[in-house]
Amino acid sequence: MYYIGIDIGGMSIKGGLVDENGTVYVKKTVVTQADAHYSVIVKDIADLCYSIIAEKGLTINDVQAVGMGIPGTINSQKGVITYSNNINFEKVPIVKEFRKHFDVPTFIGNDANVAALGEARFGAGKNCNDVIVITLGTGIGTGIIVDGKLLEGKVGAGAEGGHIGIRIGGEPCSCGKRGCWEAYASATALIRQTRRAIEKHPDSLLVKFAEEEGKVSGRTAFLAAHADDATGKAVVNTYIRYVAEGIISLVNLFRPDCVLIGGGISNEGDYLMERIQRRVNRYSYGGHRNPKVAVRKAELKNDAGMLGAVALCL
Amino acid sequence: MYYIGIDIGGMSIKGGLVDENGTVYVKKTVVTQADAHYSVIVKDIADLCYSIIAEKGLTINDVQAVGMGIPGTINSQKGVITYSNNINFEKVPIVKEFRKHFDVPTFIGNDANVAALGEARFGAGKNCNDVIVITLGTGIGTGIIVDGKLLEGKVGAGAEGGHIGIRIGGEPCSCGKRGCWEAYASATALIRQTRRAIEKHPDSLLVKFAEEEGKVSGRTAFLAAHADDATGKAVVNTYIRYVAEGIISLVNLFRPDCVLIGGGISNEGDYLMERIQRRVNRYSYGGHRNPKVAVRKAELKNDAGMLGAVALCL
Repeated sequence: MYYIGIDIGGMSIKGGLVDENGTVYVKKTVVTQADAHYSVIVKDIADLCYSIIAEKGLTINDVQAVGMGIPGTINSQKGVITYSNNINFEKVPIVKEFRKHFDVPTFIGNDANVAALGEARFGAGKNCNDVIVITLGTGIGTGIIVDGKLLEGKVGAGAEGGHIGIRIGGEPCSCGKRGCWEAYASATALIRQTRRAIEKHPDSLLVKFAEEEGKVSGRTAFLAAHADDATGKAVVNTYIRYVAEGIISLVNLFRPDCVLIGGGISNEGDYLMERIQRRVNRYSYGGHRNPKVAVRKAELKNDAGMLGAVALCL
Repeated sequence: MYYIGIDIGGMSIKGGLVDENGTVYVKKTVVTQADAHYSVIVKDIADLCYSIIAEKGLTINDVQAVGMGIPGTINSQKGVITYSNNINFEKVPIVKEFRKHFDVPTFIGNDANVAALGEARFGAGKNCNDVIVITLGTGIGTGIIVDGKLLEGKVGAGAEGGHIGIRIGGEPCSCGKRGCWEAYASATALIRQTRRAIEKHPDSLLVKFAEEEGKVSGRTAFLAAHADDATGKAVVNTYIRYVAEGIISLVNLFRPDCVLIGGGISNEGDYLMERIQRRVNRYSYGGHRNPKVAVRKAELKNDAGMLGAVALCL
């Protein structure tokens, strides 16, 4: 059976022909006309779908369903985009509009949630029913899958796990609150923590690695830590404590089968995963009596959104 | 249609004959033989069920289903009690055992979760699909209802909302971690905060109210605050900030229709609810763009567990 997964981004729209096992047969991309009227963008998506099936010699009757991951607040039940801040989408009945051109069952979801669903279903979370996907990037994205289904909250306004608090009254967050997990454990936060450490310890190896890369990045502190620099190790240890703190809160609420970590910081791989795993084992509620929650690196990278859009259809 | 709801406690077992609207026709109680073999307790529950239906002149054929709220870790899918620390229940196949005596479809759940479900379905959360119930007592209990269903986590080990962190590295918690919400916003925590304030400000009205009651309780600071005592007001304001902090994390994750607050502290009523509501409105993610989450006092009190057990069947 064939499905089409669509991943709508601010720059480009990616589409793929995929089966129920996550095998990708065709992959195509068009530019997002982000400032155009929504009907233009929707027509582009439909044309992309026709071009994808043509490549495999199929017709619309061979497509079981289409899924779409869309940036913004999505009312998946009504098939409506409430709001998107990257694209000119506000109160857009996208499913209805799309089916004027390409009339198969169509499902939509928030792009980050949908990518999490893809990772849970076809990536590092395969065979797990309850999965939390965490993206450590500019902010912290979370996708929460309970019993195989995305947790979306009322009108898709939930699952903002980056904005659970970890230090009441702490660092200011872009959301207007203080002390959010994102303000401590995103890549942006790690860079800020590294900069502060450089100011305090201008003789540390952090300075050398930042100079080599031409900037302070999310890697700087890890590079220094691997080179056995005391300041680098202190920054990394504190950062890992922050990352684990939010994960433990989520584990205590959801007790998933596994926690998958993606985003730039996840490239630190086993060094990072093992240290988070240890804290999760030690500090999550109920200790040994409760089932262990596996902490793993996410696998799918750029195809997560497209595959997740297909998972929406299944 | 008739259902029987059973609320199993360490001291007594309460049973009720209830219809699908939550109307209670018969209510009866037996003593819990907490140290007996589980087969004895299960037989007592079955006898209680027969005695309940007899009182209304019904037979077992008139009962659609039985629901049970049980203290401990419950595997509701398998119908097994994994562990209970109040009663001699470990790896007990209670549904199978119970149906030997009273053979109707039987559903089980953790008592706190089940009480939350009752409150959501038949109490202050009536007509809401997504509800969070918070009990501010010795600890903090949370019951999370997503799309009308209890969130239980793998093998019932989730929904430990009292153990989300609100201050990393903060007050020690009974769970072994530091900085849990429960360590700041339970009644126990409020009493500790009040005691500390008394030590620092022995001239405050806190002392007078504690002396009148013969102890420092969860009410002491509220009484002093109502009497316009500066120290009492400071304790209450800080405590409300702690309560709201955890609620905001949960709102950002679940974006429910309403948050219901029960437990001893909830008797502070509107004074408490309004102040929490204001902070939730102000600090939850997305501000005005997202739907408002109503904060309300729980209604059902002692019948929540029994009614929730019926809600498990529906």
